[in-house]
Amino acid sequence: MYRTTLSTGLLALGLPMALAVGGMGTAAADTPDLTEDQLERASQLYFERCAGCHGTLRGGATGPDLLPDNMKELGQRRLERIIALGTEGGMNNFDGILDEDEITLLADYIQLEPTDPPEMSIEDMKERWEVFVEPEDLPDAPQHDRNWENFFVTILRDAGKMGIIDGDTKEVVTEVETGYAVHVSKTSSDGRFWYTMGRDGRLSKIDLWMDPPQVTAEVFIAYDARDVAVSKHGEWQDKYVIGGGYWPPHFVITDAETMEPLKVVRTGGYNTKGEYQHEARVAALYNTPGVPSFLVNVKESGQIWQVDYSDLDNLRVEMIESAEYLHDGFFDPTGRYFQIAANFSHKMAFMDAKERKLVGLLNTGDIPHPGPGANWDDPECGPVAGTVHLGEGLMTAWGNDPEGHPDQAWEICFSVETDGPGFFLRTHPESDNVWMDQAAHPETDVHQAIWVMDKETREMTPIQVTDKPREQDAVAIHMEYNKDGDEVWVSVWARGRGYLEEGEIVVYDDETLEEKERITGLETPTGKFNVYNRINKHERG
Amino acid sequence: MYRTTLSTGLLALGLPMALAVGGMGTAAADTPDLTEDQLERASQLYFERCAGCHGTLRGGATGPDLLPDNMKELGQRRLERIIALGTEGGMNNFDGILDEDEITLLADYIQLEPTDPPEMSIEDMKERWEVFVEPEDLPDAPQHDRNWENFFVTILRDAGKMGIIDGDTKEVVTEVETGYAVHVSKTSSDGRFWYTMGRDGRLSKIDLWMDPPQVTAEVFIAYDARDVAVSKHGEWQDKYVIGGGYWPPHFVITDAETMEPLKVVRTGGYNTKGEYQHEARVAALYNTPGVPSFLVNVKESGQIWQVDYSDLDNLRVEMIESAEYLHDGFFDPTGRYFQIAANFSHKMAFMDAKERKLVGLLNTGDIPHPGPGANWDDPECGPVAGTVHLGEGLMTAWGNDPEGHPDQAWEICFSVETDGPGFFLRTHPESDNVWMDQAAHPETDVHQAIWVMDKETREMTPIQVTDKPREQDAVAIHMEYNKDGDEVWVSVWARGRGYLEEGEIVVYDDETLEEKERITGLETPTGKFNVYNRINKHERG
Repeated sequence: MYRTTLSTGLLALGLPMALAVGGMGTAAADTPDLTEDQLERASQLYFERCAGCHGTLRGGATGPDLLPDNMKELGQRRLERIIALGTEGGMNNFDGILDEDEITLLADYIQLEPTDPPEMSIEDMKERWEVFVEPEDLPDAPQHDRNWENFFVTILRDAGKMGIIDGDTKEVVTEVETGYAVHVSKTSSDGRFWYTMGRDGRLSKIDLWMDPPQVTAEVFIAYDARDVAVSKHGEWQDKYVIGGGYWPPHFVITDAETMEPLKVVRTGGYNTKGEYQHEARVAALYNTPGVPSFLVNVKESGQIWQVDYSDLDNLRVEMIESAEYLHDGFFDPTGRYFQIAANFSHKMAFMDAKERKLVGLLNTGDIPHPGPGANWDDPECGPVAGTVHLGEGLMTAWGNDPEGHPDQAWEICFSVETDGPGFFLRTHPESDNVWMDQAAHPETDVHQAIWVMDKETREMTPIQVTDKPREQDAVAIHMEYNKDGDEVWVSVWARGRGYLEEGEIVVYDDETLEEKERITGLETPTGKFNVYNRINKHERG
Repeated sequence: MYRTTLSTGLLALGLPMALAVGGMGTAAADTPDLTEDQLERASQLYFERCAGCHGTLRGGATGPDLLPDNMKELGQRRLERIIALGTEGGMNNFDGILDEDEITLLADYIQLEPTDPPEMSIEDMKERWEVFVEPEDLPDAPQHDRNWENFFVTILRDAGKMGIIDGDTKEVVTEVETGYAVHVSKTSSDGRFWYTMGRDGRLSKIDLWMDPPQVTAEVFIAYDARDVAVSKHGEWQDKYVIGGGYWPPHFVITDAETMEPLKVVRTGGYNTKGEYQHEARVAALYNTPGVPSFLVNVKESGQIWQVDYSDLDNLRVEMIESAEYLHDGFFDPTGRYFQIAANFSHKMAFMDAKERKLVGLLNTGDIPHPGPGANWDDPECGPVAGTVHLGEGLMTAWGNDPEGHPDQAWEICFSVETDGPGFFLRTHPESDNVWMDQAAHPETDVHQAIWVMDKETREMTPIQVTDKPREQDAVAIHMEYNKDGDEVWVSVWARGRGYLEEGEIVVYDDETLEEKERITGLETPTGKFNVYNRINKHERG
C-alpha cells in the first residue's frame, strides 16, 4: 500500500540499493519519465525539504498528504506554483531555496506512488555503528584551556555539521561533522559529551574536552530521525541515550558510552481516535528529571510514551493519550510536569511525569511551537510558561504551578501579539526578558525581526536582527543565553541559494537590548545550545 | 512488501471488497490461472487451515514461511504431496480433511504473492458491533432450573458454534452461534457470561441464565483472532473484555457489559533479537489475579505485554522479553506466577505478575504446549506444573513454588513419556490424576488414545478413547473435569470429510478410569469449559 519516498534517497545517503526494497517495479507503470538519476535527486530533495511536514510516506502530518490521486488532480503547473510560492495554509515558499528545475522535479515526483521504505533491525544498526575513540582512550581532563562550559554547540543545518563556538571569545573552535540537518543536541550531566541526531538518523557523540572537540562514536538508528535524549536519573545517570525514528517509526536505546544499540521498540500504532497510523513518528525525546524514564512523543498517534529505563528487559511504558500531533515540549521549573505542543490540535498537552499521566489540555492558538520553551514568574499568575505559534503571531502564557497556584494551572494567563508566526521563545532565570522569533512568517521584514517581552510589564520591544532587511532569504531564528544570562545569541539563517555561507549569529546585551557582536561567515546556523545553561538545573530533560 | 492472503477470504467473511486493498493488481503478473472464485475459495481455505501455523501474511510462525520463491522452487507436485501427507517436521496430513481439488488449489495459491490485509479502526469495529439484548433486559435470575454451574461450554469447531452441555444430565442444552473455530472461551467472575473469540475475530458474549442460553452482544475486533480474557481484579471485576488479533496484530479492550470497543493497541514490533515483526500476533490473553492487568502474549516478538487496565487513557504496559514464539499458558496455584510456552524456543517462560517481570526460562522438550496446563503437588518436588509437547511424546513437570521450594523453582522435576505429541493436559485439586492427550500424532492408534498419570506414583495408564481405533480421521483431544472433580470429559474430534457429525464426548470416572457415558452426534467438539471449575479459585486468568 505504501511505497517508498526514500528508496532513492537512501542511495544518496550512502545506503546500498539492496536496502531500498519496495515496489519500485510496480511504481514504474505510472511513473512519469524520470530517469534514475532524477528519481534519486527528487527523493533526496523530498527527504530534505518536504518529508518533515508531509511524512516520509507522503501520508501527511503537519502538512497535508501528497498522494498521487490528489497530486494528479492538482496537476503539474499548480503543484509547481504551490512549491514556489507556498500556501496561505502555512506552507513555506521555496522559490528562494530551490531552483526551477528542482521545483519541476519535485512536482513530478509527488505524482508518483510512494513505496514503503526498508525496516532496520538492531543488527542493521550495529553494521553502521562505529567507535572512533575507545572509552579508555578518552582524556581525563580538558585538553584545552578554553572555558568550555560557555561553549555554544551550534547546528550548521545544511552543512551537516555542529559548530563549536567559544562563548567567551566568540571564536568558532571547530566544526564537527555530524548528520544532515541536526535537529537537536542533548548533553551528558556534566556538559562534556554532546549527542546529536541528524535527520539522516546519524546519532553522534561529541567530546568537548578533546582539542579540538570531535566525534568519538556514532550509530545510525533510523533512515529519517529527529531527536535524542540522555538518561539522567539516579544510577542510570549518563548510562543510556535514546534516539527516535521518523522512519522506521521506532525508538532505540543505546549505551551512552559506546553508542552500541541495545533495544528497539516500535511506535507505529493507533491515534487517539483508534485509527491506525503506519507512520507514527517519534517527534521529540526527553529525560524525566525525577523518574528513571524517557518521554517518547509519538507525533501521529498523539501519545506520550513514558519509557522507564530502569529495566530494559521488562520495559515499562505508559502510553499516555493526549492529542495529535505531538511536536516539541519542555518541563516546568520543578521538572515534574511536562508541557508539549499537540500542534494540529492547536493545544498544549500537560503531563505529570511522577504520576505518569495526563493532567491537562489547553487550546492556546494556531499550531503552538515552543521549541525549548520558557518558564518565568508572572506578577499576576505566578509561575507561567509560554509558547509561540506556527500559525499566527501570538505568544500565549499559562500557569504551571498546580501546587502553589491551582486556579491558574494549565489555564491561559495572558497572550501577547507579534507580527508573525514563530518557532522559538527563550528566557533565563537571571533575565528580565522573554525573547521570541517570527521565523515562520514568509516576509523578509517580519522574519528578520524578533521581539523581546519584559516579564514584569509584558511590554514588547521589536529588534531588527539583520543590519537592514536583507533581500536574500534569511531568517532570524532561535535565541540562546550565555552562561551568565546577560547575553542573547540569535541566529541569522541565510538559506537562499548562493547565500548559504552568509549566516551569522548576532549577540545582544540582554539588559540594553543593544547589539554587542556579530559572528559571521557561518553556514546555515539555527539551534544553539549553551553548555552551562543546558546542564544547569533550571534546564530539564 | 506484504500482500494479503485475506483479500479474497474477506469476501467470504462478508467484508466488502473495498476493504481488501493491497497489491492485487501487482500480484496479477505472476498469478497462475486462478479465477476470482477460485482465489476466494483458496483464501478461505488458507485462512481456515493454514494461517494459524504459517501466518496470515504467509511469513511463517509455528510452521515455515510459504512465500512464492520457496514455494515455486518446491513446485506444484511436491506442494500437493506435503499438504496431503504432512511432513516429519510436524505438519499435519490434510488428505482426510481436504479433497484433491482443494489441495491443488492451495498448492496454487501459496505460489502467489501475498498481499497486506486491511487495517481495522475502532470505527470499523463499531460498525460490526451489535447488542442483541440490552443490558437492562437481561434476566435477574436463571430462567431455567438446570444446574448451570455444571454446564460444559463446548467448542464445536467447524460448526462455528458453542455447545452448551448439561454436566448433570449430559444433554446438549443448546448450540449457540459464534465465530468460526472458537479458540477459547473465558467467563465472568460468577460463571454466568461466557466470552468466545472466533478465528474470524468475532467476539461473542453468551448468557447462560437465559432459556436457552444465547448471545447477547458481539463485536468483530479483527479479521483473524484467537483469544479473549475478562478483567477480574478489584473494582475492575467484569468491567473489561480484551480480544487479541492475529491480523491486524493488535489487542482491543471492550466494555464487558455491552461489548463496545474502547481501546486498541498495536502489537507489531521487534522480537527479542531486535528484528522487525510486521505480523506480531496476539497469541493468548489472561487476566492476572492479583494485579489489575491483562497478559497479552505476542507470539512472534516473544514479548509478554502486561497491560494494566486500571487507567485506559494512561495505559501502562510492561513489555516483558521472554522467547519466541509465545503460545499458551497458565498461572501457578497462587495466581502470582504465569507459565507460558515459547514453543519455537522449546522453552517454558515464567513471569512474576506482581513484580511484572520475567523470572525464568526452561528448556522442557520439543515445542511445549500446555493448553490450560496443570498444577499439582509432587511427592518429591512439592508444587509442580506440567506441559505436553507438540514435537514429542513427553510430559515435563517443573517446580513452581519459589517461596516454599526455591531450589526446584522453574527447574525440571521429572518427565514421563507418552506415545506421541499432544496438545493438552489437565487435572483437578480433588483428583489423584493428570490426564494428557496425544492428539498431535499422525497415527490413528496413537491419537485416539490418551494417558492418565497417578500424581503420587507417576505411574502411567493408557486409555483407548474411541470404542475401537476408528479408521476415519478422529482424534481424542482436550480433557475437562466436572464440577465435583470426579468425572473427566474427553472430546473425540471427528474431522474427516463425511464424518464431521460423528464427534463425541466420552465421560470417564476419574477414580476407576472406566467409561461412564458417551455424548454422541456432536459436530467437531474440541475444547470444553466447565463453569464451576473455571470460576473456582484454583483456576486463574
